[in-house]
This record gives sequence, C-alpha cells and structure tokens, in this order.
Amino acid sequence: MIIVIGGGPAGRLGAMHLAQAGREVRLVEQRKIGGQCLHDRCMTICALNDVARLIEQTRIQKDLGILDCVPTISYPMIWRRMREVQERLSSVLDAETREAGVEIVYGAESRLEGGRVFIDDEEVRAEAVLAATGSRAAIPDIPGTDLPGVYTYQTLPAMSDLPRRMAVIGGGVVAAEFAYIFNAFGVEVEVIARHGLLKDLDPRMRSAALRDLAGVGIREQTTVASIEGGGRVRSIILANGEEVEAGAVLLATGLVPRSESLQGLLKRPDGAVIVDQRMQTSVENVYAAGDVIGPPYLTPVARREGLVAAENILGHEAVMDYRCIPQAISLRYDLAFASTDGDDGSLTLSAPAPSGSGSFWDVATGWTGLARIQVDPESGRLVGAAAAVPGASSLFSYLAHLMKQGITVADFADIIEVHPSTDGIYWLARYAGDILQQKKR
Amino acid sequence: MIIVIGGGPAGRLGAMHLAQAGREVRLVEQRKIGGQCLHDRCMTICALNDVARLIEQTRIQKDLGILDCVPTISYPMIWRRMREVQERLSSVLDAETREAGVEIVYGAESRLEGGRVFIDDEEVRAEAVLAATGSRAAIPDIPGTDLPGVYTYQTLPAMSDLPRRMAVIGGGVVAAEFAYIFNAFGVEVEVIARHGLLKDLDPRMRSAALRDLAGVGIREQTTVASIEGGGRVRSIILANGEEVEAGAVLLATGLVPRSESLQGLLKRPDGAVIVDQRMQTSVENVYAAGDVIGPPYLTPVARREGLVAAENILGHEAVMDYRCIPQAISLRYDLAFASTDGDDGSLTLSAPAPSGSGSFWDVATGWTGLARIQVDPESGRLVGAAAAVPGASSLFSYLAHLMKQGITVADFADIIEVHPSTDGIYWLARYAGDILQQKKR
Repeated sequence: MIIVIGGGPAGRLGAMHLAQAGREVRLVEQRKIGGQCLHDRCMTICALNDVARLIEQTRIQKDLGILDCVPTISYPMIWRRMREVQERLSSVLDAETREAGVEIVYGAESRLEGGRVFIDDEEVRAEAVLAATGSRAAIPDIPGTDLPGVYTYQTLPAMSDLPRRMAVIGGGVVAAEFAYIFNAFGVEVEVIARHGLLKDLDPRMRSAALRDLAGVGIREQTTVASIEGGGRVRSIILANGEEVEAGAVLLATGLVPRSESLQGLLKRPDGAVIVDQRMQTSVENVYAAGDVIGPPYLTPVARREGLVAAENILGHEAVMDYRCIPQAISLRYDLAFASTDGDDGSLTLSAPAPSGSGSFWDVATGWTGLARIQVDPESGRLVGAAAAVPGASSLFSYLAHLMKQGITVADFADIIEVHPSTDGIYWLARYAGDILQQKKR
Repeated sequence: MIIVIGGGPAGRLGAMHLAQAGREVRLVEQRKIGGQCLHDRCMTICALNDVARLIEQTRIQKDLGILDCVPTISYPMIWRRMREVQERLSSVLDAETREAGVEIVYGAESRLEGGRVFIDDEEVRAEAVLAATGSRAAIPDIPGTDLPGVYTYQTLPAMSDLPRRMAVIGGGVVAAEFAYIFNAFGVEVEVIARHGLLKDLDPRMRSAALRDLAGVGIREQTTVASIEGGGRVRSIILANGEEVEAGAVLLATGLVPRSESLQGLLKRPDGAVIVDQRMQTSVENVYAAGDVIGPPYLTPVARREGLVAAENILGHEAVMDYRCIPQAISLRYDLAFASTDGDDGSLTLSAPAPSGSGSFWDVATGWTGLARIQVDPESGRLVGAAAAVPGASSLFSYLAHLMKQGITVADFADIIEVHPSTDGIYWLARYAGDILQQKKR
C-alpha cells in the first residue's frame, strides 16, 4: 500500500499515476479533493476575474456608446454560484481519481514520524508515502491581523459583501490579481507593498500590469505598523503614522508550507520539506511534492512534482525539470512570461500587441497589450518572452516548451498563425528574425 | 521597380519584404490598405463577435443571479465605432508599410496584360509584378439577390439597423459566424444551407459548433428558389415552395477570386490565377498571392504566399508549404483545428475541455467546450487536433507547428502548462501518451 497525504494537484496526480500503474493507493484528504487550487486560489481567482473582465469590457463598450448600461454585480451571489461550480468540479475530480483506482479517505488526520505513517493516530503500514500537504496563507507579524474584516485568500469567503474601501497588503501576484478584481467590482482598493508591486516583473511588463491597475491606489516601499478597529477593522496605520481607512483588509503576503504534521524529515526554516530532484525527502521511501516543498507554488509544477515522485516510487528514474516554466498573472488581460536559464538575451524587443479577439474594442482606448522578447543574437534563440494580451496563458504553455527546445526566431518563419490573433510574440520574433538575417547579409 | 497590385495581407507583406531587401516597390491599392481582412471580413467579424460574446456571457451571469441585467446594444453605434477602429488600424498599417520603404499609390486602377502592367491605363515598366487583387463575395444564381435588404459581407455596412428576422444563405464558416453574431444580438436567424452547415468539420466538433448556434434556425439540404419582396426583401421561397419570412438576407455563399483585371495569365474556371509552388504565374516575372489564387482564403496563408512570392522575386528559392495550416471559427468559443496530411489517426479521443478563464461560469450550463485528437498509434504522433474552447485560436498556431514537426503524445510529458487553462488538447495528449505506454508494457 502507498499512502498519499493531500488531494491537491500534487497528491492527486501522483496517486492516480501510481494506481494506474497497478499499485494499491490510499489518498488521505482532510477537506475536499482538488486542494487550494480548486477551492481557494486558482479557480476562485479565475471565477472572480471572469466577472471582473466582463464588467470592464462592458464599461468600455458602454463608453463607446455600443451598450446602454453596465450591469450591477451581486457579490454574495458570485460566491454562492462559485461554490456550486467548485463543488461540481470537485465531484468530477473525485470520480476521476476513484476511476483511476485510488481509494480516497476524507476527513482523516495524517501525520508522519520519519518513515512511520499515522492516520487518525493509528499507524498504517506503507511501502511508500507521498506527502503533499500544501501550504497556507502567511500571516504577517502586524498587530490587528485577527480583527474581524481582515482576510486571507483562505478566509475571504467569510466576507459577506463588498466593502466601500479595501486595503490589500502585499506586493505579489495574488495581491495584484485581487486588487484588479475588487477594483473592477467598484471597490476603492489600496495596495500596500513593503517593497514594490510585482517588482520582479520586467519593467515594461510591470508597466502593462500597472495600466490594468490604473484605478487602484498603490503605495510601495510602505510598511504597515498596525491594523486598527474596535469590533471590526476600520483602518491601517502605516509606519510613517499615516492612517488608511479600510472596511476590509486582504493579507496577500505569501504562502508558507503546511508541514507541521510531517515530522522527522529535514525541512528548511520556513517549514518547506527538503527533497532531491527525484522528490525524495531525507527519509527513504518518503516523497514530497507540491506547495509543501516550497516555491514556486504553481499548480502545473505541483502536478509534475507529484508525477515525478510517483515515477520514482514505481522504480522508474525521473527528475524534476524547473527550466523555462511559463507563468501568468490574470488582470484585464493575461500577463504571461517564460525564460530559459543561462542565456543572455541581449537583443530585447517590445511592441504593442495586435488587436484581436478580446481586444478589438480596446483599440479605441489606445491599448491592446504588449509583447516582449529576448533573443540571443549569436544563436537566434528565443531566451525570454512575455506578453500582456487576451489569451496569453494558453499560448505560453507551447511557447515555453518551444523555448526549452531551443526555438530560434528564424524558426518562426515556419509557423502559420491563426488570424486574428492577439499573439504579439509571433510578430516580434518574425521581426527579430529579419533583423538578424539582415545583419548576416 | 516592382509593382504590387493590392494592399491586403498578401500584397502588403510581399511589398514590405521586397522594400526591406532594398528594392524599389510601388504598391497600388484601389481602396484602403489592409484589404478585406481588415475592412470587410476577419476584423469585422472579430469586432462583432467580441460584442456578441460579451452579451452571451452577460446573459449567463444574469441567469445565475450574478448580474442584474443584460445591456442593450446599439447596432448602428457598433458599426460607427468599428469603422473608427478600422481606420485607425489602417493608418497604422499605412505608416508601417511606408516605413518599410514601400511607395503606396491609392485609388488607381491597375491591370495586367500578360507581363505588361498598366496603372490608370498608363503602361509602367516593372521588373516584376506581384498581383494580390483578392476576392469578392460570390453571388448565387437566385432571383432577387439584387433586392434592397439583401447583403453580402461586403455590403453589410449598408444595413442600418438590426432586422427582427434574418436569413443567412450558406453553409460555411462565414455563414456560421454571422448567424452566431446576429442571434446573440437578438435577431431571429435562419440559416439555409444547400448541403450541411459546417459539413466538413469533424462530427463532434460540428456538434460543438451547433451547440453555440442552438438559438439559430438551421435548414440543411435546402435550396433557395428565390428571394421575394417589393421595394425591399420580405421573404425567401425555398425549392419545396415553403416561404421563410426575413427582413434581411445575408448571402454567405463563398468567395470568388477577383482577377478580371489580370489578363494574359492562366486561370482556373472560377478565375483563380494559376501559380506554381513559388507563386509564379504562367507569365515570367509575374507572381500572384492571396485570395486571387483561390482557397483556402485565409489571411495567414495570404501573408505567407506574399512572402514566398517576394523571396522568389528576390531570387531566393522559396516554396509555399500548405501542410497542417491551423484554422479557427469564432462562435461562443473559438473552434480551432489542424491536421497533418498522409497520416492516419486511428487512435481518436475526445473529452470535455477543462474550465478556465472565459469558461468558468459555463460550468453552470454544463458545457465548457470540447477537445479532440487523432494519434498515429504506431509512432505516437499527433496527426489531428481540434478544440472548441476560449482562446483555442492562439494556442493552435504553436500546436500546428509542433504537429508539423512531428510532436508525439509522449512529448507532452515535457510540456508544463499554464494554469488555469482551457487547453483540453494538452490533457488528451497526456492521456493518449499513457494509453500508448501501457500498451507497450
């Protein structure tokens, strides 16, 4: 018997892979299958963002005189309906996982003591263990985070309606995504970032992101001294003494691995379980995958880690490859990016993206997004790419794969695009190909 | 001097390529740069479809209680604003083309007599000619097509407001796309197809398309006897004598190459100029590209043909490759598809697509799209793919390229997707990879 702890992307895909290979697998899940990805993070943001984009598109077409009004949203109803959809998706995952041959045990507490596994305090014999216990929202060390009206992505469902003003504390992707959503919903949003907002993004792509966040108040290099309020949050006091009024506060200050129940394994100071490239922990036959081993905290990476762990449990050598992983941020458009390691893209080009499906009417606002590439001029290889356009996410899965394979800008001559397309990368790469060819001649 | 006749995708890209290579190029365009793609077809459908999808998404969220109303559209304003956007895009193309070094002559009539070129009846000496005169709407041989209220995609701008009922005559992509749009706008649409509607699509993908057209009346295997009306169209009489009331009729019965001004060249019976793989016509130094050489009547193909012609004019050997060209139909979602030639995909799989950005709320309606693949079980090569999902167009550019390169389903193990993504192809290919691997073991 193989025990998998946690039914999120890492645990579920690992468990299914093991069961499909004919092994007896028991998956222990405290809550619901699908993990935070389905119930708290990715899909929640997707659901809210789909409404936010619709409202913003409607506003643009209303301003152009094409539509006569902008609908009003019912925030409580969004959550009610979203929960229904998430439940439905969760049942699909449950059925799919069982059909693969996995036994699922819901509601039980699991813990590890080195190589020993306990389920509800009863020791279970296991040939191997895959620990995929995920992560939780980090709570910053600020007075007042326990006040009613202060939320994390995990407790946000408790917010029953939209506040007039909201503060988002944090400077990462999740802070930006929620700021965009609540601003589109009509809330006055103030982002307070200790360093910069999306500071690790390429400066041009960061400008593109900030354009989508034009209605949001942004304070950077700003430290929060405390969150204040009586029975409920009322304001935030900044380190400089300034008071920022806020009817609700969202803490978006990162994640911490959820590894308290995993004892007797080597961990990093933040609790991340240490694994090798095969996803094996410091204990033989105990593997870990997903958020519990630390960043990048991405669903597709967690899934792959789960599969790599499963392959090694099956005795097939497999290692995790972290090169050129595509990522995306969901704002008005998708902001997607990927880069290969080691190469230096000294030929860097950016250009407005072509207008197409989802951005035609944005031409009227003068902004149809941005594409950006980095090319190694010696080899012509595309070593970095980023795009802020509708649908960027879906094309970056394949673009990043091609980049990892070493696609050159000259190779783009062989790609026939679908028209109309918002894919500005294609055109920039073609243009870079022309530049490099002219240099050669 | 090289003369390029026509400033659509084929002529414009060919002209720019020639000018960038240092050649003197004169581009003669009767109307506006950008061709039918920008002014009559692709971008017009894109603009209208962006409004139609917005309205349909709003309806779904209204039905779920998330939004309180569905905005009413102003059809005349859509056209007014669309024209403004198209003008703006046309100026961008004009500037870009001139910057590349092309001289543009607007409003002149060009004609060829074999290798001789006449501009406004004056003969011009040219080392080479690229004829890219495009196509026009085919008018079926039915009495009444000249009645007021009968339109093609070219004359549609003359329709000043939405009719209550509209008939679309035709069974191709354009018929389906306009039927979807006008139905979403609240018009009762009746499609009348002599054979089937989208009959060449794979049956499952066709079902997916018909799902998007659920509100449209569809009559197949139906011949129109005449279009009737006094001062204005009133109805359509079918061959079986039945009368179909219609306040407007859209003829979507295909395209014919616009080659009357090109004389002394070999042509097919439909007027398509005959070219070899290098885009050379039957006359030396006269090349043709784009819609004037016949199907598939796609912008990216026209662009590539223009570039191939330009390369050959420059003396660089280049041939046109028509393998695995991705295509898409814009309905509620994109329906994109591509297939390689010659291979037989005897392992065929389809599955509902995962919900993601643009389809989250559609889970509530039970439909998040469809993915379908065909795999050669011997080699594992992906030889056919089709998807009806939001954003399908943008990923098929790269997917088709990978298919042409011979990607196998096992190679998908190396692709890390962006999450959430609506890309069902990825999951089907992974699944097919597992099936083939299990067979081997």
